[in-house]
Amino acid sequence: MNIQEIYFEEYGEGLQRSTMGRTITEADIVIHAGQTGDFYPHHMDEAWCRTQPFGRRIAHGTLILSIAAGMTAGDINPRAISYGYDRVRFIRPVFLGDTIRVTATIREKREDKKRPTHGIVVEMLEVLNQEQKLVLAAEHLYLVDRKTPVASVI
Amino acid sequence: MNIQEIYFEEYGEGLQRSTMGRTITEADIVIHAGQTGDFYPHHMDEAWCRTQPFGRRIAHGTLILSIAAGMTAGDINPRAISYGYDRVRFIRPVFLGDTIRVTATIREKREDKKRPTHGIVVEMLEVLNQEQKLVLAAEHLYLVDRKTPVASVI
Amino acid sequence: MNIQEIYFEEYGEGLQRSTMGRTITEADIVIHAGQTGDFYPHHMDEAWCRTQPFGRRIAHGTLILSIAAGMTAGDINPRAISYGYDRVRFIRPVFLGDTIRVTATIREKREDKKRPTHGIVVEMLEVLNQEQKLVLAAEHLYLVDRKTPVASVI
Amino acid sequence: MNIQEIYFEEYGEGLQRSTMGRTITEADIVIHAGQTGDFYPHHMDEAWCRTQPFGRRIAHGTLILSIAAGMTAGDINPRAISYGYDRVRFIRPVFLGDTIRVTATIREKREDKKRPTHGIVVEMLEVLNQEQKLVLAAEHLYLVDRKTPVASVI
Amino acid sequence: MNIQEIYFEEYGEGLQRSTMGRTITEADIVIHAGQTGDFYPHHMDEAWCRTQPFGRRIAHGTLILSIAAGMTAGDINPRAISYGYDRVRFIRPVFLGDTIRVTATIREKREDKKRPTHGIVVEMLEVLNQEQKLVLAAEHLYLVDRKTPVASVI
Amino acid sequence: MNIQEIYFEEYGEGLQRSTMGRTITEADIVIHAGQTGDFYPHHMDEAWCRTQPFGRRIAHGTLILSIAAGMTAGDINPRAISYGYDRVRFIRPVFLGDTIRVTATIREKREDKKRPTHGIVVEMLEVLNQEQKLVLAAEHLYLVDRKTPVASVI
Repeated sequence: MNIQEIYFEEYGEGLQRSTMGRTITEADIVIHAGQTGDFYPHHMDEAWCRTQPFGRRIAHGTLILSIAAGMTAGDINPRAISYGYDRVRFIRPVFLGDTIRVTATIREKREDKKRPTHGIVVEMLEVLNQEQKLVLAAEHLYLVDRKTPVASVI
Repeated sequence: MNIQEIYFEEYGEGLQRSTMGRTITEADIVIHAGQTGDFYPHHMDEAWCRTQPFGRRIAHGTLILSIAAGMTAGDINPRAISYGYDRVRFIRPVFLGDTIRVTATIREKREDKKRPTHGIVVEMLEVLNQEQKLVLAAEHLYLVDRKTPVASVI
Repeated sequence: MNIQEIYFEEYGEGLQRSTMGRTITEADIVIHAGQTGDFYPHHMDEAWCRTQPFGRRIAHGTLILSIAAGMTAGDINPRAISYGYDRVRFIRPVFLGDTIRVTATIREKREDKKRPTHGIVVEMLEVLNQEQKLVLAAEHLYLVDRKTPVASVI
Repeated sequence: MNIQEIYFEEYGEGLQRSTMGRTITEADIVIHAGQTGDFYPHHMDEAWCRTQPFGRRIAHGTLILSIAAGMTAGDINPRAISYGYDRVRFIRPVFLGDTIRVTATIREKREDKKRPTHGIVVEMLEVLNQEQKLVLAAEHLYLVDRKTPVASVI
Repeated sequence: MNIQEIYFEEYGEGLQRSTMGRTITEADIVIHAGQTGDFYPHHMDEAWCRTQPFGRRIAHGTLILSIAAGMTAGDINPRAISYGYDRVRFIRPVFLGDTIRVTATIREKREDKKRPTHGIVVEMLEVLNQEQKLVLAAEHLYLVDRKTPVASVI
Repeated sequence: MNIQEIYFEEYGEGLQRSTMGRTITEADIVIHAGQTGDFYPHHMDEAWCRTQPFGRRIAHGTLILSIAAGMTAGDINPRAISYGYDRVRFIRPVFLGDTIRVTATIREKREDKKRPTHGIVVEMLEVLNQEQKLVLAAEHLYLVDRKTPVASVI
């Protein structure tokens, strides 16, 4: 973990990085249930899950999103803060023992309508399982300092 | 945790529920860092945080989103699945020792353009701290079975 | 989790509720050993357990009691507090991967000999595994406000 | 942790042992809530607790019982198994930061009415806080092999 | 856990003790990754490990060292403090599901060149897996009070 | 976390890197006690610690070593494996709330006497607290592939 200062103007659209893999374990799901209080049987009741179409326990959507965010937390940019997420979609279930990896792509740079000193950088997160199937997609929004404020923001 | 079957047609727009409170602890942040691998100094380095404008360690955005989702995981509706989130916004920092509570409001019911058998229910999550200030907002999307499929979906 | 005020006089003997299921995982046992400091080989040493009559690692009794108590922690009754347990019995072992559910039955209402303003409500907890075999039984005692104090308590 | 074989006949009534102390931390309570799913505001909502008579967050009863059991899990006796608990009583609240220690006393030896080959040893657990006030009492029952079975059990 | 006062002069070279066994679980590795921030794929990515010579996820070296140290933390000697480790060697990988036990042998007693009031006791830790193969060796150094200070230390 | 292939010949002696800081929390100590089974009162009993010269709970030595190792786990070098530690020394206590950072310096490159295809790289770890005082030192040994095996190893 290093510090690397990058201003809004310096982000390159299309820039892509990929993470190493991480296996989602039973322990991860137990810990996430314990952290959030979400003990739904989809995650916690193996006997019931066997009677359901998906057949096995599945990871919480917020677990996969949180891990994906953590896996893409690389160098620290003191000019950027995490601002939120758009279009988070739980596309396929993640089962215990699945291994995920994340591709992060700078998808878009937007004006921040309220702050002439900042811009919004949109990084697309795509989480793939070990069969290269997309399981989660999300747009991570960063609020980033501009080197030069824009003259006016409409 | 009970089972309560609710079809798309039965969701009432404007219906609101509120959770009890939960204090966000140092232990929560340590566990979330450990679960996600996000050890950014904003969350983990008290000495450095004291030199920053916010002055103290702050919770991970994904921690607050995950806990808010868990706090609103009430009765189980076998007709609904969590589909994703829109417009997740980290509005104010949450500090160690802050107490949050969540208000969840059925904000909108939408057709699902791909599935005539389902609709999308949008539940607005608003997370307030102990000063009644909004710290996080998000739209939680549920994909819900219709009792009666729509004739056609454009 | 909602608040529901119930006075001693309002508890109905025989009232029964049942929980969803929960699979007891290796992670649960590791976390409970870590919380309590009980690292007995019955729970922690798979190689040794294979040489024993029960043949596999078994869950701590206090783990199953604690989870059963948690699974039956439903709505909050501000008129009641948990007072203790009687006749906790570890009837059959719970193995890693077993799925338990709990039936809670209001078994008895008793005078509190020291407090004319309160009564004791006894809720019987019965923990069943996935084969519907009883693994743990316990009486959970609640100290509950009376609407009307009794004239005298002997 | 050593192995020490003790038969029913060899347990001495009145034998007492005392543990070292252990401070009950916020992390313990967060982990216990996560393990059991009991997120009652008495344990988790500092803001609400300040409005209540006890004024602060309190530990779960099952947490203190589980830790007390773990603290008294000393040498392993292959002739004994934990059979259950009687008269578990939550006598005073345990607050975050309180330090507990446990005194365990062999209180009684009983015939096991169903098994002439075994007896019941009752060990009284008394949990004291740092002010030497009793916070929890419980009778821990062990089912222990007899060296010599009794002639008959009524 | 008892207190037993032992001075430097009283440690017997060659004295050996052995622990019970402990199975290293997936949960242990997940918790250790979370505690340390070491999410290397050797520990966390089952899919990648299958493509490697060792074929499966392996435990962190610091996890096995930490657990071995904990397993040999027996009675408390108020005359001794843990001073460090020499020659820690990760000799064979420990896989999920392996069961380890530890042999601790007083290997050497040394003068402490700086402190005439103390000596160094060297305890050799040998960690064996369920096949009795050595997986980790380390020398644990204790700084121990002397009953009688040495006349001079060169 | 990236992959960067570095052979033995390419390591530069004297090369130094420094980590961000990390605050050692009560939760870290509770989790480490739970992972290792070391519940010594030095770490767990605040009331007793107040009566001791150091006055407060202190972190386990293996916790600080494990975290320091994790904090210096940067890019992955597929040519190197962690081989062990030499001269681990617990120099000053680390208290709850202390913030540590680590400096890692390539101190020495050695022949591996048994393997002409490898060399040993010694990285010195120095852990400083928030007052820039050294709390732990250790030599981390890596076994690293040579590009060119040495002709013979004595």
